[in-house]
Amino acid sequence: MELETYLKKTAEEVNSLLQDSYGDPKTALSRAANHLLFAGGKRLRPALFKLAADAVKPGSSKIIMPAGLSLEVTHNFTLIHDDIMDKDEFRRGQKTVHTLWGEPAAILAGDVLYARAFSLICTADAPEEPKVKAIALLARTCEEICEGQQQDMSFEERGVVSRDEYLEMVTKKTGVLYGAAAAIGALLAGGSDAQVEGLYNYGCRIGAAFQIQDDLIDLLASSAKSGKDQASDIREGKQTLIAITAREQGIDLKPWRRPLNHEEIALLITMLTDKGVIDTVQKDAESMITSAIHDLSVLSDTMEKHLLAELAWYFIRRDY
Amino acid sequence: MELETYLKKTAEEVNSLLQDSYGDPKTALSRAANHLLFAGGKRLRPALFKLAADAVKPGSSKIIMPAGLSLEVTHNFTLIHDDIMDKDEFRRGQKTVHTLWGEPAAILAGDVLYARAFSLICTADAPEEPKVKAIALLARTCEEICEGQQQDMSFEERGVVSRDEYLEMVTKKTGVLYGAAAAIGALLAGGSDAQVEGLYNYGCRIGAAFQIQDDLIDLLASSAKSGKDQASDIREGKQTLIAITAREQGIDLKPWRRPLNHEEIALLITMLTDKGVIDTVQKDAESMITSAIHDLSVLSDTMEKHLLAELAWYFIRRDY
Repeated sequence: MELETYLKKTAEEVNSLLQDSYGDPKTALSRAANHLLFAGGKRLRPALFKLAADAVKPGSSKIIMPAGLSLEVTHNFTLIHDDIMDKDEFRRGQKTVHTLWGEPAAILAGDVLYARAFSLICTADAPEEPKVKAIALLARTCEEICEGQQQDMSFEERGVVSRDEYLEMVTKKTGVLYGAAAAIGALLAGGSDAQVEGLYNYGCRIGAAFQIQDDLIDLLASSAKSGKDQASDIREGKQTLIAITAREQGIDLKPWRRPLNHEEIALLITMLTDKGVIDTVQKDAESMITSAIHDLSVLSDTMEKHLLAELAWYFIRRDY
Repeated sequence: MELETYLKKTAEEVNSLLQDSYGDPKTALSRAANHLLFAGGKRLRPALFKLAADAVKPGSSKIIMPAGLSLEVTHNFTLIHDDIMDKDEFRRGQKTVHTLWGEPAAILAGDVLYARAFSLICTADAPEEPKVKAIALLARTCEEICEGQQQDMSFEERGVVSRDEYLEMVTKKTGVLYGAAAAIGALLAGGSDAQVEGLYNYGCRIGAAFQIQDDLIDLLASSAKSGKDQASDIREGKQTLIAITAREQGIDLKPWRRPLNHEEIALLITMLTDKGVIDTVQKDAESMITSAIHDLSVLSDTMEKHLLAELAWYFIRRDY
């Protein structure tokens, strides 16, 4: 099966399962908690959960798939809280939860999803021992995501952030939940310790690379294509891997921390390309993907293993 | 053992276990998450957990006590988020987390404690099956606490709240976490289904009665004694069981929704006492305690059972 077809089918399955579980909200709070969850999204984390489960035990995802929703629900809880912190008004083309219901209800809506994420694993049709391991991993993951978000916010107040600090931040903020998605799928399907660990590392790496690709898209993709302000990270002086690599190569980006027109952005991209900054960052992301694919050597040769390798490249080959 | 001695000893044990687990925070976020947790508190939920565990299996609490911290950590997560929603500046005599670290870090600090609450149950030295049940109960409890808080906030915008709605709100906002504390203690200690259910109901009832007693204290205790503004609920037109009972008896409390001096408060108390409102509310709380003690009939006769009965009365006999 083509990766694109697989992702599309899985997203439909996830949407239908979400509808079964939460489609009939009884309270105002449930409606607020559902808002973002039902506003679309690529459902990449449940897809990863499913691929990992079926890669370690063919056909196993069918009965444990409700637990795969847990990762999507966790992701949405973090988005609702992040949007409050960042005062973002729109997400997935819709008004954010706090914009519609106010901050107190949005804090609670995130907290409700947080609880549901754990409930979903508890109700999975799997043995108790891996379930407890999965729950422990999800809890550790949630704590790490919070640390990653806190680091990201603290970087805004700091002049200099090192490459290692940046990589730790993106791994925690974005990587570990992909790691948990793959590892929990493998755990509940009865995978070996080596498979669970390999898939965890794979997920963390592709998640971190995804974030680096996001930074590249911010600079390289036109606003028309990405729907976001081009080069906003550089205009705001954000500490991305591009900014860190530029500084390491002696390039001062401070003069670019101001409104930039199309010509100036083009000039900036040319300069960063000529100095090798773009290439270095792209190579960093590619080398993470290569390592991630190497992590898959714990799996036997199945369609799912191939799709996981494709998915890894997809994470950094998207251009918006 | 006297209840007071028992609670004091348990609080010391809880403080020491919390110190072992989180006493050496490595990040700014961990320090924010620890702030309220290490600012004291009566540790009533872990005490209830311990009593329940030892009541169903003598001596069992020793090895599962770390899981008892989960309830205290959950309580503190809800307080941190509630303080943001209510814009409260002080708690336990200290500045609140959002006042010290800002709202974004306070949202994250609560989220970190939320994750730790689940981690703590996972690491308990107990069989996997009751652990999963305990985690499922904690998750359901967290969702209900959110609903209770949302109901409480929504009541402020409504003219009339019924007795049943009020009782549902206090049961969710305050009762269910006491219910979960007792039930999870019994579950992890290997209690029977009947014992777990009985202790859950016991906890829900004493928790709801605790909240009703809080409403009585707000009206009856002098500011000097309680450290809070006397009669603030009535001045703010809050929907408490006192206000609901008064309305049921044809008393209009609207004229009292204004600044009140000592004499006026005394007059109000006399009027509500003469009309039987105070007595009715006190009897409601007492009847919840009587039912809660009846729930304890699933336990054999131990020191812990007696302490649980004493604890129930303690919840509504405190006068500040």
